[in-house]
Amino acid sequence: MSETVEALSRGAGLAAWRQIADALEAEIAAGKLAQGTQLPTEAALAARFGVNRHTVRRALATLAERGLIRASQGRGTFVEAAPLAYPIGRRTRFSEIVTGAGREPWGELVAQTEVTADANGAAMLGVSEGAPLLELVTVHRADGVPLSTARTWLPLPRFSGFAEAYAASGSITRALSACGVPDYTRLSTRIRARPADPAEAARLDLTPGRVVIVVSSVNVDAAGIPIQANRSAFAADRVELVVSP
Amino acid sequence: MSETVEALSRGAGLAAWRQIADALEAEIAAGKLAQGTQLPTEAALAARFGVNRHTVRRALATLAERGLIRASQGRGTFVEAAPLAYPIGRRTRFSEIVTGAGREPWGELVAQTEVTADANGAAMLGVSEGAPLLELVTVHRADGVPLSTARTWLPLPRFSGFAEAYAASGSITRALSACGVPDYTRLSTRIRARPADPAEAARLDLTPGRVVIVVSSVNVDAAGIPIQANRSAFAADRVELVVSP
Repeated sequence: MSETVEALSRGAGLAAWRQIADALEAEIAAGKLAQGTQLPTEAALAARFGVNRHTVRRALATLAERGLIRASQGRGTFVEAAPLAYPIGRRTRFSEIVTGAGREPWGELVAQTEVTADANGAAMLGVSEGAPLLELVTVHRADGVPLSTARTWLPLPRFSGFAEAYAASGSITRALSACGVPDYTRLSTRIRARPADPAEAARLDLTPGRVVIVVSSVNVDAAGIPIQANRSAFAADRVELVVSP
Repeated sequence: MSETVEALSRGAGLAAWRQIADALEAEIAAGKLAQGTQLPTEAALAARFGVNRHTVRRALATLAERGLIRASQGRGTFVEAAPLAYPIGRRTRFSEIVTGAGREPWGELVAQTEVTADANGAAMLGVSEGAPLLELVTVHRADGVPLSTARTWLPLPRFSGFAEAYAASGSITRALSACGVPDYTRLSTRIRARPADPAEAARLDLTPGRVVIVVSSVNVDAAGIPIQANRSAFAADRVELVVSP
């Protein structure tokens, strides 16, 4: 059996890795390499383009740098899905947004600790400095792909059952409901952006240094009492925030 | 006259450039090096810390990487100002926001060309594909520091006088008024983030690779007719977008 080896324009002024990166980018743009699917292995790509694996690796690194593919530790390399349109408003609900986009939402509880409110946390949640807070670290996925990782603070003892309810349901809305908060609204949202720190990059399955959009928000219950402060880092390649008037 | 040379903890495990970067960061945080002011020269810092200029340069590169200082070509190095809180809403006005923060706004016209609407531009502005549009490239400053650079598209011939009015007034609001649009509102806003491209980095006086927040928006006149589509790249170190419900 003979492999079909694609012709690269040797000596045409573009390095082989660059030509391979451009060819794969065109296939992603055209949908021939569908979003969310796994790329062929390095060995398969090396055979297809008639180059060594080092050259393939450099091409893939370029595509990762462009935000088009994502190497997932031990699971292979995947084409990034189209960015999810993520509305920011009074009733922002992760699960509803992801479900509405035809993807499966899940929130994973990574860590929980009891902390005391610093000046900033106290101001956001309307509690005294030093008051006890539950701090959670979470990762929020759509079809298994991490979209955001968050730190969330809730006042104690009011939300002492929250972590358990969240771990069971994977949904902040359902966990709040289990804690006696049937409805809540967004009081404020602040948006910044910066390179991901190493812990965020690991939780989001991002190449270190890729950009995150940092969304800080406070939610209030039906009586207007702050119940939750969040700082979410969204993988900037995977979402587009939509603000409606 | 004898210079006062500060003691660095030689051999304490931290490189001299790292100790200098940390010392300067602490002075910025404490306000001893005030936001917006010029840093001492490399020669002055080298004398102060008793190191060579190469070591100072490495410390300054680290602070630039942290987003704390900004080297401006030919003008020196400046402490970054606190991020400006930038409300995103139905009546977002750059000049009003910057003035309200006690800074002096100015919009600079960098380039103007006549283009034809592609499918995306046609959809945003409610015109036919191929319709003539005015495309402007602008830079928006607060106290001389660039906050954002934008591409703006307006339908022709309705806004044929816009570029001239904008160059004269430095204000989109005043230029629209000169074109017979006394009031306008924001129809939609979409927010992404990524590293600045080289042209944006140059216009924003950013180290290449720093992050920009990309805000795409459409404005409509009092009758609801789209008058303007924008794609603004904000220097992420210099703004915090605020979304109010």
